[in-house]
Amino acid sequence: MKRVVFPGTFDPIHFGHMDIARRALALFDELVIAVYDKPLKNLLFSPEERIELVRTAFIDEPKVRVEGYSGLTISYAKAIGAQAIVRGLRVFSDFEYEFRMALANKRLDPEMEVIALITSEEHTFLSSTTVKEIAALGGDVSSMVPEFVEKALAAKLNLQGETHNVPLNSLRD
Amino acid sequence: MKRVVFPGTFDPIHFGHMDIARRALALFDELVIAVYDKPLKNLLFSPEERIELVRTAFIDEPKVRVEGYSGLTISYAKAIGAQAIVRGLRVFSDFEYEFRMALANKRLDPEMEVIALITSEEHTFLSSTTVKEIAALGGDVSSMVPEFVEKALAAKLNLQGETHNVPLNSLRD
Amino acid sequence: MKRVVFPGTFDPIHFGHMDIARRALALFDELVIAVYDKPLKNLLFSPEERIELVRTAFIDEPKVRVEGYSGLTISYAKAIGAQAIVRGLRVFSDFEYEFRMALANKRLDPEMEVIALITSEEHTFLSSTTVKEIAALGGDVSSMVPEFVEKALAAKLNLQGETHNVPLNSLRD
Amino acid sequence: MKRVVFPGTFDPIHFGHMDIARRALALFDELVIAVYDKPLKNLLFSPEERIELVRTAFIDEPKVRVEGYSGLTISYAKAIGAQAIVRGLRVFSDFEYEFRMALANKRLDPEMEVIALITSEEHTFLSSTTVKEIAALGGDVSSMVPEFVEKALAAKLNLQGETHNVPLNSLRD
Amino acid sequence: MKRVVFPGTFDPIHFGHMDIARRALALFDELVIAVYDKPLKNLLFSPEERIELVRTAFIDEPKVRVEGYSGLTISYAKAIGAQAIVRGLRVFSDFEYEFRMALANKRLDPEMEVIALITSEEHTFLSSTTVKEIAALGGDVSSMVPEFVEKALAAKLNLQGETHNVPLNSLRD
Amino acid sequence: MKRVVFPGTFDPIHFGHMDIARRALALFDELVIAVYDKPLKNLLFSPEERIELVRTAFIDEPKVRVEGYSGLTISYAKAIGAQAIVRGLRVFSDFEYEFRMALANKRLDPEMEVIALITSEEHTFLSSTTVKEIAALGGDVSSMVPEFVEKALAAKLNLQGETHNVPLNSLRD
Repeated sequence: MKRVVFPGTFDPIHFGHMDIARRALALFDELVIAVYDKPLKNLLFSPEERIELVRTAFIDEPKVRVEGYSGLTISYAKAIGAQAIVRGLRVFSDFEYEFRMALANKRLDPEMEVIALITSEEHTFLSSTTVKEIAALGGDVSSMVPEFVEKALAAKLNLQGETHNVPLNSLRD
Repeated sequence: MKRVVFPGTFDPIHFGHMDIARRALALFDELVIAVYDKPLKNLLFSPEERIELVRTAFIDEPKVRVEGYSGLTISYAKAIGAQAIVRGLRVFSDFEYEFRMALANKRLDPEMEVIALITSEEHTFLSSTTVKEIAALGGDVSSMVPEFVEKALAAKLNLQGETHNVPLNSLRD
Repeated sequence: MKRVVFPGTFDPIHFGHMDIARRALALFDELVIAVYDKPLKNLLFSPEERIELVRTAFIDEPKVRVEGYSGLTISYAKAIGAQAIVRGLRVFSDFEYEFRMALANKRLDPEMEVIALITSEEHTFLSSTTVKEIAALGGDVSSMVPEFVEKALAAKLNLQGETHNVPLNSLRD
Repeated sequence: MKRVVFPGTFDPIHFGHMDIARRALALFDELVIAVYDKPLKNLLFSPEERIELVRTAFIDEPKVRVEGYSGLTISYAKAIGAQAIVRGLRVFSDFEYEFRMALANKRLDPEMEVIALITSEEHTFLSSTTVKEIAALGGDVSSMVPEFVEKALAAKLNLQGETHNVPLNSLRD
Repeated sequence: MKRVVFPGTFDPIHFGHMDIARRALALFDELVIAVYDKPLKNLLFSPEERIELVRTAFIDEPKVRVEGYSGLTISYAKAIGAQAIVRGLRVFSDFEYEFRMALANKRLDPEMEVIALITSEEHTFLSSTTVKEIAALGGDVSSMVPEFVEKALAAKLNLQGETHNVPLNSLRD
Repeated sequence: MKRVVFPGTFDPIHFGHMDIARRALALFDELVIAVYDKPLKNLLFSPEERIELVRTAFIDEPKVRVEGYSGLTISYAKAIGAQAIVRGLRVFSDFEYEFRMALANKRLDPEMEVIALITSEEHTFLSSTTVKEIAALGGDVSSMVPEFVEKALAAKLNLQGETHNVPLNSLRD
């Protein structure tokens, strides 16, 4: 049985994440979507909320397990008996980031494989940051996230009144 | 009549921005330089100061209009009846950023075009961040910004005594 | 009146080219699609055939003019009174190629502008080489080129029996 | 049972190829190494020789099958009942090539997955072209290919006297 | 006599830095390793601690001088009579950063050369940020930094209890 | 005494080459410009002509030595007692090429250093291929090569009548 891990912050989960997860599901026996607990960067949703949104997205997939984790991704992957870490590639900067992480991970544990799946052409621009930015500014994100995520975004952003944790429209200088 | 928008934070405007604006002017009937109101990142100049500096830079160009804006760039562009958003490309990371933004914008409004103009060879290294960093450390920025911007930088940096909003000499680790 | 040139070899024209041309049409008054005469690289179609296929693709667009040309692209663009050269950007290597060409062209004629339009997400992988390779190996190119180009490809490739001018399945080493 | 295909020209097989194959083997039940028959580019070894060298390299791996193929890689992968195509990523240009191929393949067959495995740090510079170039110029390739490939290279290059098919020391201009 | 400067924040020094320094030493008569005083980004070690760790790393190298500095790197380099600034290149984003810095520096002082040395294949993934992140999460950094740095990291991170200055496991979104 | 080698095909030498050579001269005691004898790619000038043009370009530089060579660059560099190989970086694809070559060279001879110098902003687009293409099509190359190279190009291209060895205007497809 092959178990693989798809780690991330998922703040919130979007169609690009779901696309990668579905591809991984077709190739392996079990997919653990691992939601990182408390990264340094400011997030919009709490760990519990992020886990809940991922669970809802895969409610009908018995081969998917959703868990929170903390610590080194590679230690977590090993602890749950995964054979590989799955990552999605969108454009170049993803590649470089993943390339460095994969090499660092190999140094920490040479037996853990890193698998990169290439995102569909309709998701190459998608990131959680883009989704949050567009939602915070009142744009329509219905083609980027499932409806329940759209609602969660609206609720969260309303509650805040101000949009303090959202990187608004960060134009290059 | 073709109206295009050149959006940015312009903190402050530099010769690279002015080069792109002049190229756009030669191709279209009206150029709206749109100064983004309150992005998340810390800026040195207030929105009013940034707008004022851009206005001064194009004081002699009747085809240029300078405005502040907030919200989604693409919604603003549509609201003022622009046919396209103009962006400058310097080096690779610009390209990737613009590529993702252009795809996201197309999703939000398929009819708004994004036009990329390639910066002159003498401006490929120029960014507002570089200008602020060099000015804050006492370097000579006269080949990078107009004289009135140089003075505004000096005044602002003196006033601060400390240079809290300036990313000083951010050496790679 | 703003006239722009969209130059290329068009061997053959595909949906990516047509997408860029349509975007340029929306922004300028006249679009000259300029088919380069005899480049060094081996082409499948003759200059006349390539021009004919481009003409057929834009038969209903009165604002499009299709012409063959030889010599320096920038000299041709100037000779026909164009204000700018239009180029499409797909992924990174395009950007670098266009960046270098734009700088070289600026050196030859500082007044000729180079405009880069970013290809739609569904065309980021498309190139004439890919189309020819897939067609030569019996794959289905109906989602990549118009029907009349598909037929022209089939006729040309049948005639050749062998596929001498087609870069077949050029796997990386 | 999960079967995956690792396609290439393998002219000749080197340690980078073998590294990727071994990683794929650990994740899937069967690995078909597919040697492309007659690509356009000039190769040093015949299809039979290339297949033979790959077979020798994996003589002790019962889960590896080595086959020649022609036509579209994706059609071949489907015909032999593979779930995915495996590719190795070294540096950036690989990524871009693979990204485009993956998108083109998705268009031809949305169900065939493309999996990218990231090469070990000691193989990031390795390519068959580099190996052939160094061998042709008398350099030591023992850290790049197995001993039997080293001998095959020496025999082949001696036989040729001249090194007509080898891209010698292709310095940038 | 040729003196060159190798500037950085060195928070903390790692084997990649030491590799670049050793290569520079073989080519020039004196190497000044210049530790930047107070960059904007949060650092784990104080300037004094960072200087001390670099000094310890090169305790046996009489041709190496370690100094703290503030202000513009290029002004410092000139002030100490250096002929060139040495930088290490790992992967692409380094290149782009260095490319822009080199062009900016040339503008400030056309006579100061910037020399890029390419990192060994075993260090392409190494950065101080990676080292700190792995150490903070309890990973083994013994293959990335000298033993005395490993101890300094452990002491510093223990002392903090919390790991407030460490960018923990910053997964892409 | 530090001797470095600057290898290339120099078909023909241009201002970008001369810029890199002059920078290297300022840092080292002797610069050997090494003209590669017979690469696979078709060249316009013979080895003797290429050497002669490089010699003319540096006629007044006593610290420059110009030589032809064949075989592995690194073996040649070692044979003449060089401490390092100097390379110029223009844009990204250069970086990747040089990165791979540097790693391959380190494998062949760990003691030979590779030094990358970053080209001036006014030469980022320059390559011998661009120069030949522009000259063959009647463009003005006086801002790209010295006058004697311009004349050599004109003579050579006239003599050929046809421009068989020149990659004409190789537009992307």
